[in-house]
Amino acid sequence: MITSTQNPRIKHLLLLQQKSAQRKADGLFVVEGRREVEHCLSGGFTLRTAFVCDEIADASLSLPQGVEVVPVSRNVYERIAYRGGTEGVVAVVEVRNMSLRDLTLSASPLVVVLESVEKPGNLGAVLRSADAAGADAVIVCDPLTDLYNPNLIRSAVGALFTVPCVACCTEECIAFFKAKGIRILTAQLQDSKLYYDTLMTGPTAIVMGTEATGLTDQWRKAADAHIRIPMLGRLDSLNVSVSAAILLFEAVRQRKS
Amino acid sequence: MITSTQNPRIKHLLLLQQKSAQRKADGLFVVEGRREVEHCLSGGFTLRTAFVCDEIADASLSLPQGVEVVPVSRNVYERIAYRGGTEGVVAVVEVRNMSLRDLTLSASPLVVVLESVEKPGNLGAVLRSADAAGADAVIVCDPLTDLYNPNLIRSAVGALFTVPCVACCTEECIAFFKAKGIRILTAQLQDSKLYYDTLMTGPTAIVMGTEATGLTDQWRKAADAHIRIPMLGRLDSLNVSVSAAILLFEAVRQRKS
Repeated sequence: MITSTQNPRIKHLLLLQQKSAQRKADGLFVVEGRREVEHCLSGGFTLRTAFVCDEIADASLSLPQGVEVVPVSRNVYERIAYRGGTEGVVAVVEVRNMSLRDLTLSASPLVVVLESVEKPGNLGAVLRSADAAGADAVIVCDPLTDLYNPNLIRSAVGALFTVPCVACCTEECIAFFKAKGIRILTAQLQDSKLYYDTLMTGPTAIVMGTEATGLTDQWRKAADAHIRIPMLGRLDSLNVSVSAAILLFEAVRQRKS
Repeated sequence: MITSTQNPRIKHLLLLQQKSAQRKADGLFVVEGRREVEHCLSGGFTLRTAFVCDEIADASLSLPQGVEVVPVSRNVYERIAYRGGTEGVVAVVEVRNMSLRDLTLSASPLVVVLESVEKPGNLGAVLRSADAAGADAVIVCDPLTDLYNPNLIRSAVGALFTVPCVACCTEECIAFFKAKGIRILTAQLQDSKLYYDTLMTGPTAIVMGTEATGLTDQWRKAADAHIRIPMLGRLDSLNVSVSAAILLFEAVRQRKS
């Protein structure tokens, strides 16, 4: 059992949590909590090591053979866990870099694209909404954050493992949609129709920019339609994950109602 | 100019930020940033004092006569500001406790009710969505947080001042809706219809419980209809502010489309 927070394996784990460069160099990231670990396994990710605190861990935790299980003391667990030691497991998992070619799309795909999203927490929240709406994929173009940031994983509450998530560049993404016959709907104010007057029953990509600067011209020009959510109050914007959810569930409504 | 963070007025300001009991005792709370202060003023709130750092403050900041303006040094400002000193103003504002009787409702009101919401940030995010959807009010029943918590104010980005927000008890709220002929739609899984198959064009209250425990029986029994958002992925819940936005904008769509 590891009982010291100065143990080199624990130090390495902390580096993986804190440093994007370390995650990139090692091709590894960190997942915390029983439910997230389960989503991660059923999403086909490969667990390298599970640091488990038996004092805290749920008896129902089951790990596949081949996963190295490292027992840790409570003080070590409290150092490596962010959420106050409720579930007793922190796992090191292999990064899986998906490309557009790896996506398996349904007959009438529904995809969300985020352009250069800055806040990992926002991307995680979009993934959670995309899971709920049964979206085929979330695509991040020219990302400013890596997909395995701990804040992203936390706010996604498992959705990073249940929704295919691809990072790629804008040109590549636009070419992919055109080749697949997927309509590009860009969320923007100028020259736009109300989202609920826009057909989303066919293959659809909903593309959103950042709250601060909106979408680049590249996307605006590639769009098949521009859509907007009406702002009926006094403020001028919605959180990107809230906007994504409103647009995704309008597609759900149109497809199912 | 106040130049010491040990100044008694600065210490009092910090207490107002940190302690719900202090806000309650004094009937005062704290608002940070030029845009929030402007929303606060146009929402009819009374500013008591504005602590302004001239080095940082936007020249366009305009405060009504009668507001005491207290200049502070940069080091003091950095101590009292949460968001890294971008806007140069932190104001002390009088609490306004609204009751259900104070609400001015439209001909066909759209209201959101949150039952015992725990996280101030979630309530703030719901207010932001309620502003965008043009909702008449947000009502918090049996709240576990006070309405003037700094995390709430921050995540509402001004919506606490643009959307009427009432805290009251559940019995009172149900009686109010019944008396006003407002239909109660409770968000719940059991015995529910899909939200988009539910009419929301008339007077409508959308009632949501906590993510952890859902709604109490009191609300379920008072409901005119039970509604649910379909969960088409692998996770089993959405963030409460995302759910609120999906439901509110379905009401908007039905009313405007």
